[in-house]
Amino acid sequence: MFTATTIAEVREGLEPVRRADRCIGFVPTMGALHEGHVSLIRAARRDCAHVVVSIFVNPTQFGPGEDLAKYPRPLEEDLRACREAGTDLVFAPTASEMYRSNAVTTVRVGKLSEPLCGAFRPGHFEGVATVVAKLFNIVMPGRAYFGEKDYQQLVVIRQMVRDLDLPIGIVGCPTVRETGGLAMSSRNRYLSVEQRHQALSLNQALTEARQAVTAGTRDVSMLCDMIRRRILAAGEARMDYVSIVDAASLEALQTVDRPARMCVAVRIGDCRLIDNMPVDVPGAHG
Amino acid sequence: MFTATTIAEVREGLEPVRRADRCIGFVPTMGALHEGHVSLIRAARRDCAHVVVSIFVNPTQFGPGEDLAKYPRPLEEDLRACREAGTDLVFAPTASEMYRSNAVTTVRVGKLSEPLCGAFRPGHFEGVATVVAKLFNIVMPGRAYFGEKDYQQLVVIRQMVRDLDLPIGIVGCPTVRETGGLAMSSRNRYLSVEQRHQALSLNQALTEARQAVTAGTRDVSMLCDMIRRRILAAGEARMDYVSIVDAASLEALQTVDRPARMCVAVRIGDCRLIDNMPVDVPGAHG
Repeated sequence: MFTATTIAEVREGLEPVRRADRCIGFVPTMGALHEGHVSLIRAARRDCAHVVVSIFVNPTQFGPGEDLAKYPRPLEEDLRACREAGTDLVFAPTASEMYRSNAVTTVRVGKLSEPLCGAFRPGHFEGVATVVAKLFNIVMPGRAYFGEKDYQQLVVIRQMVRDLDLPIGIVGCPTVRETGGLAMSSRNRYLSVEQRHQALSLNQALTEARQAVTAGTRDVSMLCDMIRRRILAAGEARMDYVSIVDAASLEALQTVDRPARMCVAVRIGDCRLIDNMPVDVPGAHG
Repeated sequence: MFTATTIAEVREGLEPVRRADRCIGFVPTMGALHEGHVSLIRAARRDCAHVVVSIFVNPTQFGPGEDLAKYPRPLEEDLRACREAGTDLVFAPTASEMYRSNAVTTVRVGKLSEPLCGAFRPGHFEGVATVVAKLFNIVMPGRAYFGEKDYQQLVVIRQMVRDLDLPIGIVGCPTVRETGGLAMSSRNRYLSVEQRHQALSLNQALTEARQAVTAGTRDVSMLCDMIRRRILAAGEARMDYVSIVDAASLEALQTVDRPARMCVAVRIGDCRLIDNMPVDVPGAHG
């Protein structure tokens, strides 16, 4: 495994791969790797001849007052995890390598950046889209892998790739959950034992709501109430949002009458957790 | 010469070129080609093994009330000019090929898009940056050629390429002028004989101001006054701006104390004309 810290090293390192026309699979991460990331690397390993992982805590996707400074950066462990999962090249740049002091260009994925987390984290998805566009231009992968855990991010990146005609296949991979159902996240390490127990309510609430849809409930405000009550029953929490949206456009639904996504963002103590789950109704694909 | 109208045709047509690792030179245009465009194609022809020209009147860079509908589209003549100048592939897509109905992604080159034409054409450079990013991702050239006539556009594109880490060399080419000094532009055909004569004042004014700088004048407001008076002496005109800016940052200067660009935008009748010229002072390069 080769570790690059500069853009020039990545380009140089991938030059023979490109020349040999070998497919490059790319997994962009902010490090603090967990089983969710590892599943993305393994998926890339299965599909592609050459696997690149980036580890970069991107400052432009953090808002003021967010956890940029304390975000975990266990580089040695991350490199070990990358190696064990079969990574060929790790790109771990500094912020100054990624952003020149006079950089002014941003990529904005209009409407899809506005609802859900976009409403609570202004500028977040602009930061994400811009850094991912840069990483794509540096690595030039054939395929890139993103977790469904960050569902809005996946939808935003897919749309960016489509709109900007990037010749890259975006592969969404299922959320990996701990025993008990908590969605894996680098931020879970902020949770106390008690909070971690409380956090199980997110997955439980979504699972119950999905069962309610299967049993015939279609009314979104009823379903959202059910989710909210279930999470609050587990302990004190601030709800950023509980929303059921069109799976493609992310527009809020009144009724589950098409492929949809149930999405929640909840603050437990200082920790902001997100989770989501697909819901569909029979015949809605028609 | 091969003419493609779809993105898929361009990708397919360039696949063997890329495989053979031949350098692709790219000239993006809005058609209505004149000697200025031809000089870009010739420059690409000199530098590169394969030359691609795009012809696309990009709707997203026109504002409401601008000349999108009447912008000239002499496709047959354009194809002939491309062929004669040594083009290998022309990409002439429709608007619906370039923009899906649900496209929402834009590229914005922050500060550089705001002054000069940006202040008078809101959204223009966002439209330019977005379509050029798309065209770059479709053609994936090694080099791309832009005229200095559209100086702010050249600076915006250079910055976008740098900021987004696109592996493309941007080549700026000198403005080509008609006899008398009028900068070539597809919009010159809107001018009456009389207006065309009047339009010579732009180049004359800039040339005189440059001579004044050489003779020792450094004060920008004096120089701009001189330019304004010279243009208005030639006939009725509305001045969008007369400005002397830092050649790299496009920030307005008070004094010509570094590499600078004199830029003017003038409306003569219904026709909006722009022109620009470099000015420098000895020793300003540090």
